[in-house]
Amino acid sequence: MSVQYRLLRLLRDHGPQSRAQLLDRLGVPRPRVLAELDRLVAAGRILEAGPAASRGGRRSTLVDLHPGVRFAAVDLGASSLDIEITDGRLEPVTSHTEPCDIRSGASTVLDRVSELLGKMRGQGHFSQLDAIGIGLPGPVSFRDGVPVSPPIMPGWDRYPVRDVLAREHGCPVVVDNDVNIMALGEQHSGVARAVADPLFVKIGSGIGCGVQVHGEIYRGTGGCAGDIGHIQVDPEGPLCSCGNVGCLEAFFGGVALARDATAAARSGQSQPLVARLAEAGVLTAKDVADCAAAGDAVCVALIRAGGRRVGQVLAGLVSFMNPSMIVIGGGLAGLGHVLLAEIRSVVYQRSLPLATGNLPIVMSELGSRAGVVGAAVLASELAYGSPL
Amino acid sequence: MSVQYRLLRLLRDHGPQSRAQLLDRLGVPRPRVLAELDRLVAAGRILEAGPAASRGGRRSTLVDLHPGVRFAAVDLGASSLDIEITDGRLEPVTSHTEPCDIRSGASTVLDRVSELLGKMRGQGHFSQLDAIGIGLPGPVSFRDGVPVSPPIMPGWDRYPVRDVLAREHGCPVVVDNDVNIMALGEQHSGVARAVADPLFVKIGSGIGCGVQVHGEIYRGTGGCAGDIGHIQVDPEGPLCSCGNVGCLEAFFGGVALARDATAAARSGQSQPLVARLAEAGVLTAKDVADCAAAGDAVCVALIRAGGRRVGQVLAGLVSFMNPSMIVIGGGLAGLGHVLLAEIRSVVYQRSLPLATGNLPIVMSELGSRAGVVGAAVLASELAYGSPL
Repeated sequence: MSVQYRLLRLLRDHGPQSRAQLLDRLGVPRPRVLAELDRLVAAGRILEAGPAASRGGRRSTLVDLHPGVRFAAVDLGASSLDIEITDGRLEPVTSHTEPCDIRSGASTVLDRVSELLGKMRGQGHFSQLDAIGIGLPGPVSFRDGVPVSPPIMPGWDRYPVRDVLAREHGCPVVVDNDVNIMALGEQHSGVARAVADPLFVKIGSGIGCGVQVHGEIYRGTGGCAGDIGHIQVDPEGPLCSCGNVGCLEAFFGGVALARDATAAARSGQSQPLVARLAEAGVLTAKDVADCAAAGDAVCVALIRAGGRRVGQVLAGLVSFMNPSMIVIGGGLAGLGHVLLAEIRSVVYQRSLPLATGNLPIVMSELGSRAGVVGAAVLASELAYGSPL
Repeated sequence: MSVQYRLLRLLRDHGPQSRAQLLDRLGVPRPRVLAELDRLVAAGRILEAGPAASRGGRRSTLVDLHPGVRFAAVDLGASSLDIEITDGRLEPVTSHTEPCDIRSGASTVLDRVSELLGKMRGQGHFSQLDAIGIGLPGPVSFRDGVPVSPPIMPGWDRYPVRDVLAREHGCPVVVDNDVNIMALGEQHSGVARAVADPLFVKIGSGIGCGVQVHGEIYRGTGGCAGDIGHIQVDPEGPLCSCGNVGCLEAFFGGVALARDATAAARSGQSQPLVARLAEAGVLTAKDVADCAAAGDAVCVALIRAGGRRVGQVLAGLVSFMNPSMIVIGGGLAGLGHVLLAEIRSVVYQRSLPLATGNLPIVMSELGSRAGVVGAAVLASELAYGSPL
């Protein structure tokens, strides 16, 4: 890792520091660090930010990231678009969320992203972006910056997302899978901070997993590692949208839960669901969460059954990967304690004792912000010269 | 990675080379490489080995590993003990195999290992070992060099294998799980050579998996990654030795196959098995393999059913890890093409197309030698100064 990258990362994660502190933390020969700092000052990437607290001897000067550094973090979901502009330390400067149908196609969606970024620039939140990080709800070739055969993104296959945005905004762009950026976010400033080998499980419309190994995202040979939604949990199970039967997603996730809730309403099993269906004409996972919270036994049972299926898959993955933590995130993490309790119960019972002896299974701390935080981390890694 | 380590590894993997070739391959400033070479010559670790082919200009001298470098590679199985002494390039100098009951306990087994090493020394195969690599059939804390709660190794839990052998033989020792060393062997000089993210599946008495990430063994937080034998494949399945039900090992592996073959003989389903049981009083996986090869339908069906179960677990792991290759090894790999065909069929049908698009599923090339080769690789990594 280059000295420049390590310097910028220290300033990103620990704030303004004296040259002496940076020297201590880097363990690189003094002349090399000082030369690198001079170069970064000359390039306008960092600046002197007042006197440091005295450590005796000559007074040192604080060094900080240039206050004008700006990253754009974009998190595209199946039905939502989140953008955050951050400074060099990844603190949000401004943000925006709106519904967005990923199926409307690459150019429509990316045009909207660019329009929003243009508006933010117009409002004075930045004059030039240093990098953009963007997450997509499907498999991504990380190296090429393109989605690859994404099942829920018609018209996006191999669309040059990175190159289009880079040309439009004149800055480097990094594209990744949405679950990977959530995992990165949670590891940078959420519950998995400083944890080396966590698994991040996103339970939203579908179910995916961010795999981290020695602190880095593991993307697999073809960029599709972590696609656990189509692991078979029951060979006699229902047909899945992927064409196979009994996949995890055929049992649980936002789509499956809405389907089961609708069935429970139609058959009259759950009066609260009957009432909600009559009123809204459609049921979603949110209805199940609300009714479960209000004590409806059918909804609680639906969540429990889903948690058991997720736990069943995770139990196998825990035996296989022996991770140091499991983080549960995504829209359905809001189903709350019942879900978490069921997942824990199955994993702790089914996985090898050696693998579960010291394995926290916890909720995401960043919630719906995990994605943009991770996208900002990726953008900064790119801008700061990480060997991504 | 230190220059010294990289130099020694180049000589290990590519044989004698001129200083000029080493300089080309390392891409490190010339004075630093030459100084490091001088230091290694002075320490007696490498030597000059005659003139190199001329590349024009001043004649260069070949550099080689010292011919007296010796590694001991030990592969302990549930019922066997393999030892190989290698030179610095991991070429075997001598080897020995004998039956060995791991349940006879740590000191008995390790005493026998030391006795055999003493004999080999007496025969002049080495005067001093540079390092020992040893694989054990159970979970290992790689950092501490001790087995951790190994299910089939009574009396071994936390036994200081590394320290005992190091004291006895006066050299550094590295201890790992037997499946991990097989995976390493296969990647160093077998079918997975130069493959970055292969999975190595050992099917022996039990079933385990060596997980490689970016060319390195991934051992997990507690050192027990890859323990796929106890992933549940059927909640209604038979009771497993681990106390859970329906684990992969309860369905397949040497122990399960012997059990099912005995049942098939007792019930008279398979005449060839009936005859073998009458003659030997006991049946093993080898009987099933022989009878299947001779066309016995019951035995072929047993292998097929086992392959389907293994495939079922691997299909999930392929979706999760998106590996670049799957290597099937271990004693039961000898069940041959029927097993491999069944595994392939299930994985290719069940995993995501993106993950299987370019995924070879192949037999181990090194066979029963995979373990000692990997143990020698580990020993050399330790001796050559790898950041293991």
